[in-house]
Amino acid sequence: MSVLMGSKRSEVLPFQAMEVLNAANRLEQRGEHVLHMEVGQPGSPLPDQVLRVAQDYLSSGRLGYTEAHGIPALKKSISGYYQQTFGLEVPESRIFATTGSSAGFNLAFLAGFDHGDRVAITSPGYPAYRNIIEVLGLECVEIEVGPETRWSLTPEILERVHRETQLKGVLVASPANPTGTMMSPDALKGLVEACDELGILFISDEIYHGLAYEMKEETALRFTQNSIVVNSFSKYYCMTGWRIGWMVLPEALVRPVERIAQSLYISPPELAQVTASAAFEAVEDYEKIKANYAANRRVLLDHLPKLGFDVVPVDGALYVYAGVSKLTNDSLGFCQKMLAETHVATTPGVDFDLSRGHQYMRFSFAGDQADIKLAVERLEHWLS
Amino acid sequence: MSVLMGSKRSEVLPFQAMEVLNAANRLEQRGEHVLHMEVGQPGSPLPDQVLRVAQDYLSSGRLGYTEAHGIPALKKSISGYYQQTFGLEVPESRIFATTGSSAGFNLAFLAGFDHGDRVAITSPGYPAYRNIIEVLGLECVEIEVGPETRWSLTPEILERVHRETQLKGVLVASPANPTGTMMSPDALKGLVEACDELGILFISDEIYHGLAYEMKEETALRFTQNSIVVNSFSKYYCMTGWRIGWMVLPEALVRPVERIAQSLYISPPELAQVTASAAFEAVEDYEKIKANYAANRRVLLDHLPKLGFDVVPVDGALYVYAGVSKLTNDSLGFCQKMLAETHVATTPGVDFDLSRGHQYMRFSFAGDQADIKLAVERLEHWLS
Repeated sequence: MSVLMGSKRSEVLPFQAMEVLNAANRLEQRGEHVLHMEVGQPGSPLPDQVLRVAQDYLSSGRLGYTEAHGIPALKKSISGYYQQTFGLEVPESRIFATTGSSAGFNLAFLAGFDHGDRVAITSPGYPAYRNIIEVLGLECVEIEVGPETRWSLTPEILERVHRETQLKGVLVASPANPTGTMMSPDALKGLVEACDELGILFISDEIYHGLAYEMKEETALRFTQNSIVVNSFSKYYCMTGWRIGWMVLPEALVRPVERIAQSLYISPPELAQVTASAAFEAVEDYEKIKANYAANRRVLLDHLPKLGFDVVPVDGALYVYAGVSKLTNDSLGFCQKMLAETHVATTPGVDFDLSRGHQYMRFSFAGDQADIKLAVERLEHWLS
Repeated sequence: MSVLMGSKRSEVLPFQAMEVLNAANRLEQRGEHVLHMEVGQPGSPLPDQVLRVAQDYLSSGRLGYTEAHGIPALKKSISGYYQQTFGLEVPESRIFATTGSSAGFNLAFLAGFDHGDRVAITSPGYPAYRNIIEVLGLECVEIEVGPETRWSLTPEILERVHRETQLKGVLVASPANPTGTMMSPDALKGLVEACDELGILFISDEIYHGLAYEMKEETALRFTQNSIVVNSFSKYYCMTGWRIGWMVLPEALVRPVERIAQSLYISPPELAQVTASAAFEAVEDYEKIKANYAANRRVLLDHLPKLGFDVVPVDGALYVYAGVSKLTNDSLGFCQKMLAETHVATTPGVDFDLSRGHQYMRFSFAGDQADIKLAVERLEHWLS
């Protein structure tokens, strides 16, 4: 019966990373020691002082629905974060707590755009962007970036694409996934201002903020009140499994987002909101965790080029994106073989870049340092 | 700038219930004792044995992403629930854990239908249905039901509407919100079979299962493998704030739902999944909580008719839906006046029924029994 075939829009691409994860899990079930470099999930538990807030609140009573936009304590602490980190006044009324940044992206697209509107993303990029855009009935315009522009979108490229496609929106991440590259404050400013001039809604994915190694990150909020900023407690704050993030919205989009969120989400998980409210207090602990990522990154940057990988600038985030054309023409097969023969799990570039991904792969350095070093040793043996 | 006006699809109706809740909160901030009968949120904390599972897991380590469809332990316990409650074999492969039933509805609509497809719901009904359907680019066909069909949809009505509108799907809840009325097993069977014959995807909202007072509830899974069943741990299992629910899917929709969920949700909150896995073991505690609702319901059914309210059959759920035409022609104004003068918070029918809602209102009996009794006393004074 036709109704049981699934909608056309459900025919988005599945993640290759998930297939690798499944194969890695099967190896582990057979008792093998798999080194996980395929997912961007922090390996560290919550800092004690944050965990204690969660434990206390859990024990103190019942958990319930909250305001769709989040509890006041969370919004207050997020506003404080912008004051402390960037010296910016961000009123709590423009802050909207979300069920992970996933909900932030969904709400941004639904409140910002109507069916058929064109939204641009960069390629390589986080594959869920493309899928969310297509599932929600928008047209995804993928703009290829590469070494010429340091893997970032520029105002010139955006203007050219806009003339051809009449964009309604553009989504940019800095630090980016999978490349880890960042835009300088000036580059970000230029892009944001171009969007304001062209009437393009700029969505700034800042979920890897806090994880910068070469320069300080900048928020789009510095340059405009017209952008949607999406952020998350998953990465720097080690809260992936809690599903909690936030958006900062232009005033005009607060009520549209709220109306949609009331129906599509009701509210973010309450315990996650309470726990996240305490996360900003634990910067000292988080900086220790970050120092571990920085050391992991150093290990990969020191060794991968010697093994034949062409490493892209890793300014931030949790990934090394590496060209493999000296080693293979088929990164998917290469990653599968690497997993089978060395038990090192990575992600082929095809998830992030449909046209050039077969020449790239992604290493996550979110895991334990011993594992990263062991992975490098295994790769040295395997490739020699 | 036009991009900052919000999308057309964001212009869904906000919930009046939220406005009442805000007004009630302002009263409380002034120190007034407000009796909350406006939201369907269980007033009971989690049973101790379920809470302990949450506490232990929280303390034991880190929380992370899970499979998009949920952890195996949760899916196993849900399968066991169908065996125990209905004597039905539901394979874990068709069970999909969701971030509350909200995510279940979103995923059902996205995986089942494409832009412009027509999906029917009944009126009065849960207002988020209409909003979700419209936000996701579908056309919502509202079918009015009333006392003639005991507030339920029948195969005859569905067939007539289908001839006129070419439906792709229909969503029905039993027990229903706001009426609390239930379909008999035979009535449900007839409707499900009509859908199968007409090629209409049937979505069965079973989130109030467990909360039936006059007859035993039946699942659509008894009669077909072609329906989507949406369920939740929020109501009977008192887990609103955890945001955890589930779907049972036709085989053909498992992969479409999974592909969409990977991008739009990644996974449901892990702690909520672990905690929910233990909920089915605590039936004895939950039955005590249910006995409290049953007593609350009795209080309302005994007193409201004497005060001039025309009560609709309350077979299940947590609500009394009552006609107020003997008392007012404007239920919104009536509820606002009632809140202001008696501090009893309720929901006007306009949230649930755009055409007839001004003649109805909803009382939730999910709260404490003392509050329900006090509310009735205040109303008796107020209306005399």
